[in-house]
Amino acid sequence: MERTLISKTPEKVGQQVLLKGWVNTRRDHGKIVFLDLRDRSGLIQVVLTADQAGKIHTEDVVYVEGLVKARPPKLVNPKMETGTVEIEAEKVEVAVTAAELPFDMGQPELELELPTLLDNRALTLRHPKVRAIFKVQEVIIDSFREALKARDFMEFQAPSIISSVPEGGAEVFRIKYYDHEAYLSQSPQLYKSLLVGAFERVFSVNQIFRAEPSVTTRHLAVATSLDAEFGFLDSWKDVLELQEYVVRYIFTQVAEKCPAELALFNATLPRLSDSIPVIKLREAQQIIFERTGRDVRHEKDLAPEDEREICLWAQEKHGSELIFVSHFLTKKKPFYVYPDPQDPGYGFSVDLLGRGVEWSSGGQRLHDYSEIRKAAEEWGLKESDIELYLQSFRYGVPPLGGFALGAERMTMHILGLKNIREASLFPRDMERIDTRFSRKS
Amino acid sequence: MERTLISKTPEKVGQQVLLKGWVNTRRDHGKIVFLDLRDRSGLIQVVLTADQAGKIHTEDVVYVEGLVKARPPKLVNPKMETGTVEIEAEKVEVAVTAAELPFDMGQPELELELPTLLDNRALTLRHPKVRAIFKVQEVIIDSFREALKARDFMEFQAPSIISSVPEGGAEVFRIKYYDHEAYLSQSPQLYKSLLVGAFERVFSVNQIFRAEPSVTTRHLAVATSLDAEFGFLDSWKDVLELQEYVVRYIFTQVAEKCPAELALFNATLPRLSDSIPVIKLREAQQIIFERTGRDVRHEKDLAPEDEREICLWAQEKHGSELIFVSHFLTKKKPFYVYPDPQDPGYGFSVDLLGRGVEWSSGGQRLHDYSEIRKAAEEWGLKESDIELYLQSFRYGVPPLGGFALGAERMTMHILGLKNIREASLFPRDMERIDTRFSRKS
Repeated sequence: MERTLISKTPEKVGQQVLLKGWVNTRRDHGKIVFLDLRDRSGLIQVVLTADQAGKIHTEDVVYVEGLVKARPPKLVNPKMETGTVEIEAEKVEVAVTAAELPFDMGQPELELELPTLLDNRALTLRHPKVRAIFKVQEVIIDSFREALKARDFMEFQAPSIISSVPEGGAEVFRIKYYDHEAYLSQSPQLYKSLLVGAFERVFSVNQIFRAEPSVTTRHLAVATSLDAEFGFLDSWKDVLELQEYVVRYIFTQVAEKCPAELALFNATLPRLSDSIPVIKLREAQQIIFERTGRDVRHEKDLAPEDEREICLWAQEKHGSELIFVSHFLTKKKPFYVYPDPQDPGYGFSVDLLGRGVEWSSGGQRLHDYSEIRKAAEEWGLKESDIELYLQSFRYGVPPLGGFALGAERMTMHILGLKNIREASLFPRDMERIDTRFSRKS
Repeated sequence: MERTLISKTPEKVGQQVLLKGWVNTRRDHGKIVFLDLRDRSGLIQVVLTADQAGKIHTEDVVYVEGLVKARPPKLVNPKMETGTVEIEAEKVEVAVTAAELPFDMGQPELELELPTLLDNRALTLRHPKVRAIFKVQEVIIDSFREALKARDFMEFQAPSIISSVPEGGAEVFRIKYYDHEAYLSQSPQLYKSLLVGAFERVFSVNQIFRAEPSVTTRHLAVATSLDAEFGFLDSWKDVLELQEYVVRYIFTQVAEKCPAELALFNATLPRLSDSIPVIKLREAQQIIFERTGRDVRHEKDLAPEDEREICLWAQEKHGSELIFVSHFLTKKKPFYVYPDPQDPGYGFSVDLLGRGVEWSSGGQRLHDYSEIRKAAEEWGLKESDIELYLQSFRYGVPPLGGFALGAERMTMHILGLKNIREASLFPRDMERIDTRFSRKS
């Protein structure tokens, strides 16, 4: 018999089906045993005799042949997508026996401390609420691709191994690369920009590597970066327009494709007004000063509490949970930032903030070869550090810009996760590659 | 005025347009100058006066306003997609001036030695024939995704940094990971398999890293791997079926979406018969012996000349340019290969060969926890080397299998490229990260 997916059973009342999946929970009621069976499509209740059930237990892989029966109205389970039916088992085969679990996986909430959740990653990923996180993440990444392809962007594979660290070397992982030293890329920034010379519009979904010597709830040593870059800008605001378009598209897709997943987390997508408000850093600082009395007007950047405050303001004043903050000091930004000719000392760099934290950064880049060389020199770079980058601009690249969104960060903030590690299948940090270093033999 | 893409100009005869692009070539004919202008969508001929043209030269970024005119029938250029029209320039602005080129980029073929092609990668990527390679590659990767999503596979982000090297350590790149030693992943094999326990069907597009100490035309130190893995196999042949479906889908999409790109390379997609033939390694060796007199019947694997011979045979005998070769010695394959119970010593491992070389490898994997432990022990692994992998199988994983295709290799063999480096935007090898080590200051 052909396998039926669990999600299809409500369409097959009165029919024989073959289901294949894992035992999510077992409940014994005397001579009757109820299993919740789980496959990639969902959960369903299977009714067996105690005899049929034997020693079947949680996470066993079982193949069940049986009859799809409509449940009496009183017994319909509205919390289960297949709650209108159940399976009357006729033949049950235990295909693979699982070991006893170290904790209960059958509850709607997996109440584990983060280290336990991650130490048991291969198991905890099976929990429906954990799987939901990665369904949402997949939709975020797919929607990023779809939005940009609809605008003629080409996807490229960004390099992970680089031979110099033009954006600063403190937090970089070093590799022994044959007889040379090389590094893991902190960002595909230079590659995506130089590719504008060849392809005009490019994007990539790539891993970025940051050897940050700290353990916080919002940093990963390896993250998934969603990068876009494009040429022929008429204005730096084209970058905002693209970014807003992409983010709105992602939200729409997540809302449409992940209602059940959002519901599991009681999550709602950020509310947006007609257009995401844009303010300069100095305007943000003035607003914060007026609202809180904290005088941050001479700071170079927003501190975490400032980010929270300006997000609150955007929500109250504009009804938007996202806000663009632009015009950071060019001196505090990398050499490629395009300075605003109308606002000396400040550049066309833009952060997107939402729900109190940074979601992305981007902006317009320098495109004139001699200006790039000058800026790079002031930044202390050798030409050999950025040889391919300079080569591209030497041969003519139009006005360009772009942005980068963090996939895990976006997942975290959409679902309201407490720690970004929950949004990474296999998080890497100072203490862990899969298992904790302290526990390794 | 709104920018018009070059590919749209044939629809706009008699209209004013604004084009933005790069000067691909300049031809002076006395008072008249012809430019071929290039943007992401194509090429078009622009007619200017010598006065308008001034010092405009190749790779300058120019903005041209002008009239779209139909060419007289005699002057239609059938080799150009916009060959029925040309632009009579009215206003020409040089937005960015390019440096003099080190070689001619205006010919249909870019006749450069490979080192020159790569030393000037930021420039040579602009050549239409080079860009075509990455258009084809993008379609290959997209089609891989589409084919698997249509079958309910979930895309995941495979880790690059790993803490042990269960598949053998000779050719691995080492990283300083905080206070620990770590490695760059040679394959997402163990991760994709363990994820079957949570998601049933997964795939990833990921970079793999191999520190091979040799420089050949078919190996890269970093390649893009297209990995798929799925559970609930009824037979190891389910893996062949999936792989054939994916490869056929990719070919169909490349044929449909890249006719112009294929034409540039005089390339045709591999011819396939109704189904891709499957033979065991020993059958292949017998066939080679009978055809060539070379007795390879006791070899552990196919040598390059054997791969070429068996591909010839498949084409002659079955009319198929692809062939599956199965049943390698389990001893010569990693610990997770599922041994064929009917054929002791040989396993359900399968290579897909095409056009004389290996395209992919895959097979069925062990899923029984105690068998995996036993095999891993015989292979000389410590449990701590594969802790997360074992954890997954300890808690029940159904019969599973999968395969991996190399994106660059597939691009190379579809287009008939001579060196795989041509199929990587930024190839990494012993001698080069972007620029050659010998040339770095």
